[in-house]
Amino acid sequence: MDIEDISKRLTKFAEDRDWNQYHSPKNLAISLAIEVSELLEIFQWLPENLPSDEATKDKASEEIADILIYAIMFSHKMNIDIGKAVLKKIEVNDKKYPVDKAKGIAKKYNEL
Amino acid sequence: MDIEDISKRLTKFAEDRDWNQYHSPKNLAISLAIEVSELLEIFQWLPENLPSDEATKDKASEEIADILIYAIMFSHKMNIDIGKAVLKKIEVNDKKYPVDKAKGIAKKYNEL
Amino acid sequence: MDIEDISKRLTKFAEDRDWNQYHSPKNLAISLAIEVSELLEIFQWLPENLPSDEATKDKASEEIADILIYAIMFSHKMNIDIGKAVLKKIEVNDKKYPVDKAKGIAKKYNEL
Amino acid sequence: MDIEDISKRLTKFAEDRDWNQYHSPKNLAISLAIEVSELLEIFQWLPENLPSDEATKDKASEEIADILIYAIMFSHKMNIDIGKAVLKKIEVNDKKYPVDKAKGIAKKYNEL
Repeated sequence: MDIEDISKRLTKFAEDRDWNQYHSPKNLAISLAIEVSELLEIFQWLPENLPSDEATKDKASEEIADILIYAIMFSHKMNIDIGKAVLKKIEVNDKKYPVDKAKGIAKKYNEL
Repeated sequence: MDIEDISKRLTKFAEDRDWNQYHSPKNLAISLAIEVSELLEIFQWLPENLPSDEATKDKASEEIADILIYAIMFSHKMNIDIGKAVLKKIEVNDKKYPVDKAKGIAKKYNEL
Repeated sequence: MDIEDISKRLTKFAEDRDWNQYHSPKNLAISLAIEVSELLEIFQWLPENLPSDEATKDKASEEIADILIYAIMFSHKMNIDIGKAVLKKIEVNDKKYPVDKAKGIAKKYNEL
Repeated sequence: MDIEDISKRLTKFAEDRDWNQYHSPKNLAISLAIEVSELLEIFQWLPENLPSDEATKDKASEEIADILIYAIMFSHKMNIDIGKAVLKKIEVNDKKYPVDKAKGIAKKYNEL
């Protein structure tokens, strides 16, 4: 997946429909919250460790695509380089959660 | 950004810390919800059309990275090909929202 | 708890601080989303059926209070009678989910 | 609205349908997140200061009822006294946000 290319297609999609007027960062963040809830809804009443069947996977696949799409549109609007942001965050997490302290423990870095 | 490569780094990060036990799709969807809310918090009391300053952009950049990271981890767990899912969704949206019907109107496709 | 009375105290609290300008229904809905995520964060990595300890209960108690507070403020702004709305919804659910169809099944009414 | 009474009706509703097995605090927190997103969806593309029409109010009324219902069920499960929790939080906020410091400023108490 080439994010630059996807971003251009999404920008054109919104421009063609004259939707840029609605796509403030605040509104796109709201859209992200709504899409994530739709993802959450799939798992709402399922036991945690149930292996997923094909129907669940298909539904999840659609929702995760929506999340990606809004994340890319948001980043475009805010002029954020997603790739850079992700790599930077991975490095931060590497330092925040050193293996010897964090191993097997699901706590926030400031509680380790 | 090469999603395959990022996905591998994130998988190794979780394995090194023995965190796979916590990363059920359900839990990762919860994590996505939490990260999106942190993004939303940045805009909570701001007027919609305020141009963003650098501090806002930096904070948003961190949150959007977290969202991407969890989305990639979730997709890896569910064996979803994100790139394919996004492209498929873009095509679906193209048909759901034809330009002549959707132009300038922010409504769901079934209300157009 | 007298919701009318709580609502008046919250209205006065916001007026004293000149915060009504920020409390649009849209912004209060965003606030609700943020508070609910803080509640969700408490359970993020916990197994589903773990009995809650006192610390968890105290944290959950604070977050649920925030949720109630924003729900009451939102209802006040929208001129919604919460008590009536809740009773109406309970009756709707009674009909949507008849005992003989819904027993032991966690599905949406339109999938029963 | 008598929360004690509502809580009893909701408990009976769940017992009649044998739904207690699904209603872990974690799952109820997820339900809250989903309902709040449905509320958010109503305002997603609306300008912030648009006065609400009757249709918007009716939809919002339904969603806020769902939020209240899940909040009451959650509190029952966790053995939380909602009324007490709300009053306590109001007092905390009174101290956290003194009028002279917070007047007209929508910032977190630790940024005032």
